[in-house]
Amino acid sequence: MHEIYEREVLEKLREIKAKKVLIQTPEGLKREAQILARFLEENGIETIISGDINYGSCDPADREAKQLGCNALIHLGHSYMQLNLEVPTIFIPAFARVDMEKVLKKNLSEIKKLGRKITLVTTVQHIKDLNYVKAFLEREGFNVFLGKGDGRVSFLGQVIGCNFSSAKVDEEVEGILFIGAGYFHPIGVALTTKKPTLAINPYSGDAIWVNEEAERVIRKRWAQITKAYDAKRFGVIISTKKGQLRIGEARRILELLKKHGKEGQLIAMNHISYPALEGFDFDAYVVVACPRVPIDDVENWRKPVLTPKELEILLGLREDYEFDEILGGERRKDEPLGISLKLPKAL
Amino acid sequence: MHEIYEREVLEKLREIKAKKVLIQTPEGLKREAQILARFLEENGIETIISGDINYGSCDPADREAKQLGCNALIHLGHSYMQLNLEVPTIFIPAFARVDMEKVLKKNLSEIKKLGRKITLVTTVQHIKDLNYVKAFLEREGFNVFLGKGDGRVSFLGQVIGCNFSSAKVDEEVEGILFIGAGYFHPIGVALTTKKPTLAINPYSGDAIWVNEEAERVIRKRWAQITKAYDAKRFGVIISTKKGQLRIGEARRILELLKKHGKEGQLIAMNHISYPALEGFDFDAYVVVACPRVPIDDVENWRKPVLTPKELEILLGLREDYEFDEILGGERRKDEPLGISLKLPKAL
Repeated sequence: MHEIYEREVLEKLREIKAKKVLIQTPEGLKREAQILARFLEENGIETIISGDINYGSCDPADREAKQLGCNALIHLGHSYMQLNLEVPTIFIPAFARVDMEKVLKKNLSEIKKLGRKITLVTTVQHIKDLNYVKAFLEREGFNVFLGKGDGRVSFLGQVIGCNFSSAKVDEEVEGILFIGAGYFHPIGVALTTKKPTLAINPYSGDAIWVNEEAERVIRKRWAQITKAYDAKRFGVIISTKKGQLRIGEARRILELLKKHGKEGQLIAMNHISYPALEGFDFDAYVVVACPRVPIDDVENWRKPVLTPKELEILLGLREDYEFDEILGGERRKDEPLGISLKLPKAL
Repeated sequence: MHEIYEREVLEKLREIKAKKVLIQTPEGLKREAQILARFLEENGIETIISGDINYGSCDPADREAKQLGCNALIHLGHSYMQLNLEVPTIFIPAFARVDMEKVLKKNLSEIKKLGRKITLVTTVQHIKDLNYVKAFLEREGFNVFLGKGDGRVSFLGQVIGCNFSSAKVDEEVEGILFIGAGYFHPIGVALTTKKPTLAINPYSGDAIWVNEEAERVIRKRWAQITKAYDAKRFGVIISTKKGQLRIGEARRILELLKKHGKEGQLIAMNHISYPALEGFDFDAYVVVACPRVPIDDVENWRKPVLTPKELEILLGLREDYEFDEILGGERRKDEPLGISLKLPKAL
């Protein structure tokens, strides 16, 4: 299996005459990165592996590649996100192998509780199986919608932690079926669609209704908002990760704070974590970066930490809870279900 | 005290017409950074504070400043290091206030044990007091040398954690007097000069002979070398921090490994720490970046970690232990004893 994609990567690198590449990898693919590096070295390509922890294609190491004199970047594990890349970048999503038929059969009665008109969403790992899942469900009489999503995703029906655009397809949909591991994605789906959401973990075979968990998250978020109520001085955190940098949104937040008699100070960070902020004496923080930081990591913060939309609630500008999505531009076409080479616009 | 330097900073920013600045700060000056940011904002300058932890002027946030659309960078706490900066940068070293006379009087008999011909070194915090210390010692009959150092330091007699060039001035010097807090700097001084080294901590007033501690460090380093003896596959780590990036040295290490039948793979990281490397299966690492990482942080590594010079010992190319300094180019003149504005070469 390795052999095939390695040869394809080598071909693409030769196509663009890259002699030196940086390989970037999420935690779980570090050994794959080593194997790929060795293969490329054996074929005359100088390789550097990035040791920095990577969580998504919102954080391509293209600048680092350029700095290190590399002609290309290989981004392992995630699919392409529309960003201005500084070097040619090869995205190699990781696809899981699971027995979807078994998982679907086991949970069919639960899926039926969603209604007949459903939206199907998944993470990149299971994108290759999505048409199979759709066909299976259609045979069972479901009317299955796949959303196109915007430029932050690569495929029909794909969701990422900060973008559920492909989950919002039709007002008449009765429920959402999420295929994938973990809680954060399906909770985001439930929060943004406000529809009954069933999450099926294809590794364990378990099915979980996440709406209650989503309610629990909202209650915790309201507690954060309450905790920040008397805060006067806010650190407004932006990320220097290319796909998380929302400086316009951060300036809007600064304006809102000012208008409401509060102080705001812009803070820029690469990896956002509370310990690095300990030395500041802000009363609370607004994270205008990855929504996962304030929501998933909240237990590690000793100061209240809000998303931009939660700050709007605090300031009385919004009543209903809304998840902080990062939205992208229009998406024109699906990426290939495998390796995808993206050239900088200037090339 | 703030007021004075703040006005000077504002003036310099107006001089270069900077409307937007990034402020970078070490841990201990985070509140200073907030105060400075507020002052500049009140005077019409948009400020962003970098929340990333900074350990020295080897890691200027000039690229981040550029990325964030800032016209200038303010680097708090450390003096200038000769590097190609991408935006105009104002260095504001932090100077400590201590009663040097009291400290010197208390330890005079200990200092006399160094001999009459001594080299005096310190960290940037106490540079302002260095001439006072020199004059005091000369009145006591010492022949005091101050080394010029190379382009990684800003002042006569200044040492930093990776560069003790100013400590090596005259073969006939009998001993080295280090003024400053902490162990790492004076141990580096002792290891690179191989002379009796007395460290006086001006905050506590304590004096410590560090040569024994330096011997203990060397013994621990030999243990690391021994631990790496059977290692076959080495991760050769370079840093993407501008002033720590020694890619030529890393390539030399890769060549050496190859020549000796071992494998080497280049790894690039911003903040080098073992947990981020856990997923790789290298047998050992060579850190071609800040020497503090393999030496000071070794307890946190579950794999052997060496400096380039330690690898040379392992490969039988070197017999004596030598500290891994990062040397700079020629230094032409001292920086001002305060704020210093550096423009990119292209400007």
